[in-house]
Amino acid sequence: MASKKASESEIIMTELVLPNDTNLFGNLMGGRLMYWMDIAAALSASKHCNAPVVTASVDNISFESPIKLGNVVHIEARVSRAFTTSMEVHLNVWGEDLTHQYKYKSNEAYYTFVALDPNRKPRPVVPLEPSNETEQKLFDGALRRRQLRLILGGKMKPDDALELKALFIKD
Amino acid sequence: MASKKASESEIIMTELVLPNDTNLFGNLMGGRLMYWMDIAAALSASKHCNAPVVTASVDNISFESPIKLGNVVHIEARVSRAFTTSMEVHLNVWGEDLTHQYKYKSNEAYYTFVALDPNRKPRPVVPLEPSNETEQKLFDGALRRRQLRLILGGKMKPDDALELKALFIKD
Amino acid sequence: MASKKASESEIIMTELVLPNDTNLFGNLMGGRLMYWMDIAAALSASKHCNAPVVTASVDNISFESPIKLGNVVHIEARVSRAFTTSMEVHLNVWGEDLTHQYKYKSNEAYYTFVALDPNRKPRPVVPLEPSNETEQKLFDGALRRRQLRLILGGKMKPDDALELKALFIKD
Amino acid sequence: MASKKASESEIIMTELVLPNDTNLFGNLMGGRLMYWMDIAAALSASKHCNAPVVTASVDNISFESPIKLGNVVHIEARVSRAFTTSMEVHLNVWGEDLTHQYKYKSNEAYYTFVALDPNRKPRPVVPLEPSNETEQKLFDGALRRRQLRLILGGKMKPDDALELKALFIKD
Amino acid sequence: MASKKASESEIIMTELVLPNDTNLFGNLMGGRLMYWMDIAAALSASKHCNAPVVTASVDNISFESPIKLGNVVHIEARVSRAFTTSMEVHLNVWGEDLTHQYKYKSNEAYYTFVALDPNRKPRPVVPLEPSNETEQKLFDGALRRRQLRLILGGKMKPDDALELKALFIKD
Amino acid sequence: MASKKASESEIIMTELVLPNDTNLFGNLMGGRLMYWMDIAAALSASKHCNAPVVTASVDNISFESPIKLGNVVHIEARVSRAFTTSMEVHLNVWGEDLTHQYKYKSNEAYYTFVALDPNRKPRPVVPLEPSNETEQKLFDGALRRRQLRLILGGKMKPDDALELKALFIKD
Repeated sequence: MASKKASESEIIMTELVLPNDTNLFGNLMGGRLMYWMDIAAALSASKHCNAPVVTASVDNISFESPIKLGNVVHIEARVSRAFTTSMEVHLNVWGEDLTHQYKYKSNEAYYTFVALDPNRKPRPVVPLEPSNETEQKLFDGALRRRQLRLILGGKMKPDDALELKALFIKD
Repeated sequence: MASKKASESEIIMTELVLPNDTNLFGNLMGGRLMYWMDIAAALSASKHCNAPVVTASVDNISFESPIKLGNVVHIEARVSRAFTTSMEVHLNVWGEDLTHQYKYKSNEAYYTFVALDPNRKPRPVVPLEPSNETEQKLFDGALRRRQLRLILGGKMKPDDALELKALFIKD
Repeated sequence: MASKKASESEIIMTELVLPNDTNLFGNLMGGRLMYWMDIAAALSASKHCNAPVVTASVDNISFESPIKLGNVVHIEARVSRAFTTSMEVHLNVWGEDLTHQYKYKSNEAYYTFVALDPNRKPRPVVPLEPSNETEQKLFDGALRRRQLRLILGGKMKPDDALELKALFIKD
Repeated sequence: MASKKASESEIIMTELVLPNDTNLFGNLMGGRLMYWMDIAAALSASKHCNAPVVTASVDNISFESPIKLGNVVHIEARVSRAFTTSMEVHLNVWGEDLTHQYKYKSNEAYYTFVALDPNRKPRPVVPLEPSNETEQKLFDGALRRRQLRLILGGKMKPDDALELKALFIKD
Repeated sequence: MASKKASESEIIMTELVLPNDTNLFGNLMGGRLMYWMDIAAALSASKHCNAPVVTASVDNISFESPIKLGNVVHIEARVSRAFTTSMEVHLNVWGEDLTHQYKYKSNEAYYTFVALDPNRKPRPVVPLEPSNETEQKLFDGALRRRQLRLILGGKMKPDDALELKALFIKD
Repeated sequence: MASKKASESEIIMTELVLPNDTNLFGNLMGGRLMYWMDIAAALSASKHCNAPVVTASVDNISFESPIKLGNVVHIEARVSRAFTTSMEVHLNVWGEDLTHQYKYKSNEAYYTFVALDPNRKPRPVVPLEPSNETEQKLFDGALRRRQLRLILGGKMKPDDALELKALFIKD
């Protein structure tokens, strides 16, 4: 099974913030943004593995700048690493006010998906091959984030998370 | 400023999974669920502080059992801890097949919100007082989760996250 | 076939009033509220009989206080009486302004559902057993309301509606 | 203030039943239909009084034939009687399968609206003048239905509902 | 195969412009209107041929007057000509401000549909018989518009579009 | 006023076809696609002129290959020519089946927008400067398409449409 590049799974999504997407301050609701991010990331994962996928987990997301009614949401999604049957997708999100030519970072996130066969069982996915330094860094970090997911999901003991542990203990 | 109990901020939300909420396998999409959870959690936070709130961050969420088309989604949200101007909300999510009387855990999550004054600036919120052991445990864990959020958001160094560090170093 | 309690069919639904749910005065449209009430009531009926249900009729609904944009809608639904293959569901609806800690009654309603078997034919449902005075009162009134439904639907003559008739003739 | 004819307030609405409007049997949900009916009726009332209106009440609705996915919903709404500041709107609803050239009655209903001035206070509406026998019958029945609404809303005693009482006591 | 009249395929659709249908100026977005027009036209075509249809093309649409939030959209659709397996539908669209009793033309358009058999292959449709001068004019123009569609779609050479060519060359 | 390049106004939109976007054959409805195209094109025009825009017209669109439920819609929009206060946007639309790695052309279209000042009056826009042969061809064709729009909108006589006329008369 040949490997694929991150750029081959790129999905670019552009959405306009409409009234029903906003709270009383006229800003995009976090949940609505996570909905769009989930679709963009799922399409990216599906493009990588050429199979249907389901969302397995979402990493900590922090919302920086509010995106206003009438502004544009830009989402860029790419697979950052493929495991046996799952893929981590890295997302960058920007808001943009087209009238004032002002584009600003909203957040960055990692969604994880599992590829499914027609019987809805996990199926193997093709590996991801990083092509440059940025992709390599995301690829390496994926292991640490995976350990954090497993610990937070109660499926790994902190002691066994060697890569993650190294963040706290430097000797 | 008097404190409030977790039960005072309880929000119970029930949603029916409709065709447009599902993927090709007929299962609820993760993003649609996060959208509902964001609204339930925001209402809970707003009920606690009696002010409008905005989503600041969402902790790692892992999706266990798929929720099927026509099934019911139950979301229970309660504030687990209040900080100066922010609140952590704890959510429990179940799916239910009413025909087969089968109710199953879908996931558990933590959303954080900031209370805003009319000028959209953060405003102080009333403290939360845990009333029983479960609430105390959620209250205590909130500090550790907050440190994790700050580290993941690049706003705290791992070395300063004492409560979190203790998970990895036991001596 | 053992009977069930009203509390076993309770459904609590919480919805946030968004821009598209409102009229030009910024108040929740009646039709949007009836849509949510229909889903809450259907889930309650389905929870009672553990079978799919379809809406058979809706009793007179009168809308008291307008629910404003950004306010919360609380719907509580419980089966009030089960007939051979149909169930009457009683709903209470409140609006709430979380910022001002102000909760107000919006309306009360009765929806009736029929349980269906896999061939879409009406199927018998388990009886409802009232557990307290309030439930008994709703249970007793269900008969009168049913006669009114049958008369209004042209399926019963006023003369045969003994319970209902008693409202007008007291001797 | 000159009177208006029922035909001047006619609204004809046609909707296609899409997947998200249907239950698991592929039939239009009652609540979704009531949503469309509310909008059609509100437009009809607004056309009669040339002012914004709000839904005051909905009379008993009974759903006869299910309307299937892909079928068409036809709604015809006309004001049947105007009171001081409110209007009763009469609706006829049909389903239609265009492929099989099969059109069937779904239900009939009465919605009541109140006209509002810019300060959201009830304002007087122009009277309705029936033009033929059918319209006269709907006009006359409106008084009886109004009494029923007032009794069911707890605002009139059965003894005072003379027109309605006559249905039960014939001597 | 007997012919049908244009009036037999008439569809009247009425929609209320809600917040999510509008741009930042509070006017109906062109794309939302084209969505409603597509459904109205598809229902009209389907009513003519009593078969499912798919949109084949849409002719040049020009938007005259903006339709405002809270205004009403009226769409009237009728088949203007039937070809072997396709139908051209003519639409008229008006906006209406019910409060000010002001109705205004928004646009006029032509949508073309193909009738499909159960295997999704084009199937023959019944001819349309114009009943008056207006319908005859629309019927005649349909040929010219069809040539324009074929030229614009790269399926006909300008030289072969005799009816259309006559518009430019008068001798 | 300096000119801008076509690439500066590029908008890439990716959408997933959900159940409610499809007809009974499970294919994307034409109207839903035109809705997405309108938003993508409006964002592109707004990006070019840094002002709010409204849809002025849409040129003939012909739908080639149906896009199926669960497939992806890719829309690429770029300004092809700017006139005094209006802009023509060129769109390319593809469908993609990610599972089968099959991407197919759906259609190509031209939408025209007018830039508005805060008083909703047309305001001048910066010119577009073509950068390569393809862009030059689109730029040149824009004049011919504009004449066709004006003729079809009844605002120009065929005799005055010199560029368009040349298509029919070659001597």
